[in-house]
Amino acid sequence: MTKTYDAPLAHMRFALDHAARESGLASIPAATESLTEVADSVLESASRFAGEVLSPLNPIGDRTPARCTPEGVVTSPGFAEAYARFRADGWTALAAPIDAGGMGLPSLIAAATGEMWAGANLAFAMCPEVAAGAIHALTHHAPQELRERYLPALVSGEWTASMALTEPQAGSDLSMLRTRAEPDASGDGSWRLFGRKIYISWGDHDFTDNIVHLVLARTPDAPEGLKGISLFLVPKRVPGPDGALHDNDIRAISLEHKMGIRASPTCAMVLGERDGARGWLVGRLHEGLACTFTMMNEMRLGVGIHSLGLSERALQLARAHAHERHQGRTIAGPNRPIIEHADVRRMLLQMKALTQAARGLVYTTAATLDVARLAEDESVRTAAAGRASLLTPVVKAWVSESAFEVASLGVQIHGGTGYVDDAEISQIFRDARIGPIFEGTNYIQAQDLLNRKVIRERGTTLNALLDDIHKAAEHLPEDRAELAPLRTQTLQVCARLRDAATGIVETAFTDADLVGSVAYHFLHWLGTLAGAWQWCLYARSAAARPENDATARATLDAAVFYAAHILPRALMHEAIVRAGSAPIARVPPGSI
Amino acid sequence: MTKTYDAPLAHMRFALDHAARESGLASIPAATESLTEVADSVLESASRFAGEVLSPLNPIGDRTPARCTPEGVVTSPGFAEAYARFRADGWTALAAPIDAGGMGLPSLIAAATGEMWAGANLAFAMCPEVAAGAIHALTHHAPQELRERYLPALVSGEWTASMALTEPQAGSDLSMLRTRAEPDASGDGSWRLFGRKIYISWGDHDFTDNIVHLVLARTPDAPEGLKGISLFLVPKRVPGPDGALHDNDIRAISLEHKMGIRASPTCAMVLGERDGARGWLVGRLHEGLACTFTMMNEMRLGVGIHSLGLSERALQLARAHAHERHQGRTIAGPNRPIIEHADVRRMLLQMKALTQAARGLVYTTAATLDVARLAEDESVRTAAAGRASLLTPVVKAWVSESAFEVASLGVQIHGGTGYVDDAEISQIFRDARIGPIFEGTNYIQAQDLLNRKVIRERGTTLNALLDDIHKAAEHLPEDRAELAPLRTQTLQVCARLRDAATGIVETAFTDADLVGSVAYHFLHWLGTLAGAWQWCLYARSAAARPENDATARATLDAAVFYAAHILPRALMHEAIVRAGSAPIARVPPGSI
Repeated sequence: MTKTYDAPLAHMRFALDHAARESGLASIPAATESLTEVADSVLESASRFAGEVLSPLNPIGDRTPARCTPEGVVTSPGFAEAYARFRADGWTALAAPIDAGGMGLPSLIAAATGEMWAGANLAFAMCPEVAAGAIHALTHHAPQELRERYLPALVSGEWTASMALTEPQAGSDLSMLRTRAEPDASGDGSWRLFGRKIYISWGDHDFTDNIVHLVLARTPDAPEGLKGISLFLVPKRVPGPDGALHDNDIRAISLEHKMGIRASPTCAMVLGERDGARGWLVGRLHEGLACTFTMMNEMRLGVGIHSLGLSERALQLARAHAHERHQGRTIAGPNRPIIEHADVRRMLLQMKALTQAARGLVYTTAATLDVARLAEDESVRTAAAGRASLLTPVVKAWVSESAFEVASLGVQIHGGTGYVDDAEISQIFRDARIGPIFEGTNYIQAQDLLNRKVIRERGTTLNALLDDIHKAAEHLPEDRAELAPLRTQTLQVCARLRDAATGIVETAFTDADLVGSVAYHFLHWLGTLAGAWQWCLYARSAAARPENDATARATLDAAVFYAAHILPRALMHEAIVRAGSAPIARVPPGSI
Repeated sequence: MTKTYDAPLAHMRFALDHAARESGLASIPAATESLTEVADSVLESASRFAGEVLSPLNPIGDRTPARCTPEGVVTSPGFAEAYARFRADGWTALAAPIDAGGMGLPSLIAAATGEMWAGANLAFAMCPEVAAGAIHALTHHAPQELRERYLPALVSGEWTASMALTEPQAGSDLSMLRTRAEPDASGDGSWRLFGRKIYISWGDHDFTDNIVHLVLARTPDAPEGLKGISLFLVPKRVPGPDGALHDNDIRAISLEHKMGIRASPTCAMVLGERDGARGWLVGRLHEGLACTFTMMNEMRLGVGIHSLGLSERALQLARAHAHERHQGRTIAGPNRPIIEHADVRRMLLQMKALTQAARGLVYTTAATLDVARLAEDESVRTAAAGRASLLTPVVKAWVSESAFEVASLGVQIHGGTGYVDDAEISQIFRDARIGPIFEGTNYIQAQDLLNRKVIRERGTTLNALLDDIHKAAEHLPEDRAELAPLRTQTLQVCARLRDAATGIVETAFTDADLVGSVAYHFLHWLGTLAGAWQWCLYARSAAARPENDATARATLDAAVFYAAHILPRALMHEAIVRAGSAPIARVPPGSI
């Protein structure tokens, strides 16, 4: 069995079709051609690129991380060449707007290619991912002049981008940030920036001549806190009118030595060591955070896509190992492949059931974003935007944790060989640990979900989602006894979660500790249920196939497993949510 | 707040007293003096050694792992000096038999010191741990001549030991091992060994002049499989009659580069490159496995002890970070210590509730081993031995996974700073990932528990344990409303687990897939309940203290949290166990 990444095209196509149908994207004419005629060939080429170019570099990047030199960041061996091919093949333009030179394909297709890049080589995949986020932000918020000057090079991949938000004292809480921007003395409307940023992914590298940094900074006399922050475009090199590039006053001064994603340079950057880094305002003054949110939501879905890729990759590696490694006696005799041991199958099924549920959720969220953009009816667009913004924190947090769980199971299946550095599963495991932390910790996601997506609108969007999940469970064929537990439990969890959410909406205003205390488990409760939703959809299709269809049979098996082994987590999350704030609020911080 | 390991002496003493009481050790005269008069001063000195000598070396070992040279393994800077002090202070002799020069202290006290060594520096702690296992095995199985020649130097720490079982094709399944032992031509009863071993912890180092390897090998004409394996003592250097050491034909040829425990040299060893490594039989021919099991059970409890140490260390680091790091707004205003955020407190309480439950379980198992050795009444000894052997796989698997969970929560609380290599929490997290793998994977523990400790004896030992857990819950004061959930749920889980176990005992013989399919979740269900047992005992003591006793208050808070946030996992494990073998057995290995 091959050890390079092997994109599961049939599974991806299956999930893609379900996501397009369930989100409503499939019936939007503007998307039909992409989904039916373009998708297969795009996915096919992407799978070759991922398997042949990106995957072999993945362990190399882990062993030989990017490094910081006085001349800038030098990336891992082979990475710059791979980026040149990536760009030449047009992958940076895939989902970018057509009027900026992009192909304008749906986010849904970009989610599928993104899954492949991450599954093959997450550290590499993060580079075009940040650029896609920047393209999105500039498209929506930058004045025309900036768009014209920067978008085409970003879309073509000639330049890349970074998102420079965090500072040592300002991580989850950006209100504390200190980088300052002053109007340039020339009075031409540009700015000079001074400050330090940390944790800037792909903040410097040797892939391209230029990097477009999107930097949050505070202007003179700006209000304190979040309301005084503005977003600036700060190029590594400023393009002159003649197209020549002039060094700007911004550079990477060091890299973090990280547990994983080691080929991805995580830079500490300094702006304004000399006369200030030249920057241009993106969006309105003091509204930087709103512009960042556009990008951040993309990045959060991006974490879901990345995590999905890692999850699939862990499954591939563990499955291959479980077939190859012989150990122990089974009914079939001594020294059997370990996949014949029930507990190894349990772990693999758990990995598979979680991975495919994650794929469904990630794709559905991407497709829902497409609907929010492409649907003709405004009310459909609004509803889709609401649903996507509810699903985004769930995808970011639930999928990142489930991918980490899957990667850890992958290590377990490998036994001692999974604990040594030259096992790729060890890298996947370390790479997967960042997902729950970056782009807003999972606690921030959980609070966002409960406060902004559930409580603020008194459960409307949530209830509409629960209606759809309820429907999906009800539509499971009643005559299939094996699917009865999935059906019954999904319906039950749906009803109970709806009830608990109503209770939270009612009491959150009087119980200040409630949201903080239960948000984490509420999100994971909903994630577990949303995974069941995907399995209901999958199982319904599979049940309609002939009895002897092996693929359909395997889908039903995984659905049965999800109901038996994953869905019971809902019981646990529910009990914890229902315990409310008391078990935490009663404890003074100093006494823990 | 200090960043070096700080042994939680009050918590340890509290857990130690409860373990001694609940196991019955406290009322055995032979142990009384050790427990009352010796324990405190031993723990006090150990805590100083752990904090001052071992803890500062921990990050050094992670950054500068042991390395293999043509002259043998060179350990991390400072480690050999620390070992010399460790030995000079008498720590290697702590629980060793008095007639071999040891102090003969109870395992319970050794568990507490072992927790400190591991919490401060797991990689280091593994070295004396293996030696203690070897002392145990030699004491019980080696002929007098070997005992006289080797035990004193092991007890004094002049020499260390290794356990050389695994080979590339023989890991979990030792029946496949190929290392062979042939009678020495001299006819003096010694043997010559030839073969390769891997994953030998502390198989070579520069701490001591000699290392006593305990090696499993196959003799000529031995039966196939497990019954043909014998245990040999193979010294790195053979002591002559004059005491001089002569090089033996065994050496480390390479080290694994591991994700964690990097200062602990994990050796690939070769025996018999020349005329064979000289060895002496330990125990009877072909009964090597039984001798190894004595050692292995020690090592399994050892994994629990190690994991407990890591769990406590992760808690310390996360708590310190949560007090120091300021971020985000709380009711108290902007830029507050993150411990004021409810979700950070949730994670810390989870870490604390799991760590203290683990401590109770580990100590109780150690104390029960002491009772099995020291009780006057044979039936008491037998019952204690049975309980210890039931608790050992639970401790190994449940505590190692809960410690990994705790370490991962520690990373999460650290945010981005927990993902970089110079954060000690990152090391603790990587170190903790080996626990579920080595000394018998957690699946092997789960099968051992169900097959050998539950089904084989039709639940007798399990039911006696459940009786005690039931009693502990019943003894919680009924007038404390806050403890009602702990009481009620523990009683309920107890009854349900008893019922499910009865069902498993009855059907396991007719359902060949049952044990493999449910063993993992059965073990974790019992582990979760056993953790509640500890909290019932703790909470009862705390409830008897005055209202204004802050320590008692904190104990009650953590007990309440365990009932609200951890015990609900029992619902999940139960549902999965009750789903039986079908969700796994129905799936053919090839279709996953």
